[in-house]
Amino acid sequence: MVSRPVRITVVGGGRCDTDTASLAERVGEGIARGGGVLISGGLAGVMEAASRGARLAGGVTVGILPGPSADDANEHVTIPIVTDIGQARNVINVLSGDAVIALPGAEGTLSEIATALKSGIAVVALAAWNEIAGVVPAATPDEAVRLAFEFARRA
Amino acid sequence: MVSRPVRITVVGGGRCDTDTASLAERVGEGIARGGGVLISGGLAGVMEAASRGARLAGGVTVGILPGPSADDANEHVTIPIVTDIGQARNVINVLSGDAVIALPGAEGTLSEIATALKSGIAVVALAAWNEIAGVVPAATPDEAVRLAFEFARRA
Amino acid sequence: MVSRPVRITVVGGGRCDTDTASLAERVGEGIARGGGVLISGGLAGVMEAASRGARLAGGVTVGILPGPSADDANEHVTIPIVTDIGQARNVINVLSGDAVIALPGAEGTLSEIATALKSGIAVVALAAWNEIAGVVPAATPDEAVRLAFEFARRA
Amino acid sequence: MVSRPVRITVVGGGRCDTDTASLAERVGEGIARGGGVLISGGLAGVMEAASRGARLAGGVTVGILPGPSADDANEHVTIPIVTDIGQARNVINVLSGDAVIALPGAEGTLSEIATALKSGIAVVALAAWNEIAGVVPAATPDEAVRLAFEFARRA
Repeated sequence: MVSRPVRITVVGGGRCDTDTASLAERVGEGIARGGGVLISGGLAGVMEAASRGARLAGGVTVGILPGPSADDANEHVTIPIVTDIGQARNVINVLSGDAVIALPGAEGTLSEIATALKSGIAVVALAAWNEIAGVVPAATPDEAVRLAFEFARRA
Repeated sequence: MVSRPVRITVVGGGRCDTDTASLAERVGEGIARGGGVLISGGLAGVMEAASRGARLAGGVTVGILPGPSADDANEHVTIPIVTDIGQARNVINVLSGDAVIALPGAEGTLSEIATALKSGIAVVALAAWNEIAGVVPAATPDEAVRLAFEFARRA
Repeated sequence: MVSRPVRITVVGGGRCDTDTASLAERVGEGIARGGGVLISGGLAGVMEAASRGARLAGGVTVGILPGPSADDANEHVTIPIVTDIGQARNVINVLSGDAVIALPGAEGTLSEIATALKSGIAVVALAAWNEIAGVVPAATPDEAVRLAFEFARRA
Repeated sequence: MVSRPVRITVVGGGRCDTDTASLAERVGEGIARGGGVLISGGLAGVMEAASRGARLAGGVTVGILPGPSADDANEHVTIPIVTDIGQARNVINVLSGDAVIALPGAEGTLSEIATALKSGIAVVALAAWNEIAGVVPAATPDEAVRLAFEFARRA
């Protein structure tokens, strides 16, 4: 098999407060510094903050968009994937990652966590989601990134 | 607008115990007796039990299948829809219902509940899922069906 | 295996002239009279005319919709399936039929014919598409319906 | 708007002869040398040859896979996108490109060309498909790449 960069999917709310955005940005930065490709839903909130962190650290950021146009991608997405399949694209976000890091969010994020767990993809939870059986809690962005890379290498 | 039958989606585990199957069958029966069309994922467990209940009561049962062949549908599905889009078909199950009734299940069911809530579709929970904010608990199959029809008529 | 009604998918333009609409309506009528379920994309043009013919003959009509709402279905669709996956729903239209009847249309119709042929689903062409290798031409709506039922029974 | 690399989608048969593979490889090389990202379906045949050409020229290659695992990607795909939505992923291949280059192929390729034309995305045809109204023929791989970049910059 070819050696490819590890892909880490970051999920979380399409809107978020500044504390969550800061966590997401540090997660994205850590993924890029570790040589990983960041996968996200490509829109605002957690997706944008994580993409910003990764891109400013020189990383590649993929945004898997629900709508019909690449123009919906946040400015830190370097490779937009245009699906036009709406919420069903959440499944692609998850399946395209070797591991998932979940930050605070709402029902869309919950559906992504559930899809990952059903598919046997590890979910590292940061600042939320500890009540969901099967997720692995992390205390800091650095720990979340470290755990995600560990799970990804075993995937 | 044309008058169409109400569509109620039933979600739950692809495997289930006999108590849950009995509840699902009574839910399916209630949907058919109320003149509704039953939507499900078309496979085994809760999906099959609910379809059995509806079909034996003379109802129409739609099964939205994840794979490439109608042969995967349980024998109580009268109209199989063949998607071949895997888990992403869960979104279609949910969006195609005017309301959702959720029985015990695992991560796939959780993803469907989350998708319904995100989409503004009412979720009636029977014998499970009461810990999820936003679902409406029902104590019996009859109550679940009654609530689902009420929500569907307002949708 | 359970005995289910044959499902015939009708594809064609979202806009059409009155001659094509008349052909589509007669095709829909024939499918219903033969005891088949009509599958279409649920919108206007050929989809609406075929659904009208089937419904007025007492048949069941399924409309597999590209958008997020059942309100987009034409008034002759009795069972709307709400996908919100855009053009990708064309694949579901095709896979859900035991055979396909293709009337005049544009690129969307062509993509459906190509998908059917790739999937080994017979395509009966009426008043168009004879230049596509692999389709089976029919001279009249009655012949198209007869051929489609024959192919469906072998599927 | 952020400045992103141009994305060019290459479509063609999952199996191909050596002449077609050579053309596809030169197309991939040209996309990479022009600073573009190559999008393909990620499997064998034309997809693999184009990815090989792009990667050996130092480019980024995205493979949008129909199945549930990144292991299906050919070895020249640097970023696999795992959709598990089967043939419906063809729509994503097309929508994710600013322009499409079509090489010889079968019905799957035809469905992608039709989807592109329906979506207003330019299709440059190389060594095939000249009979499809709306495609722009190119005589050589270099011309196909030049035309695709021109269309992409206008998109």
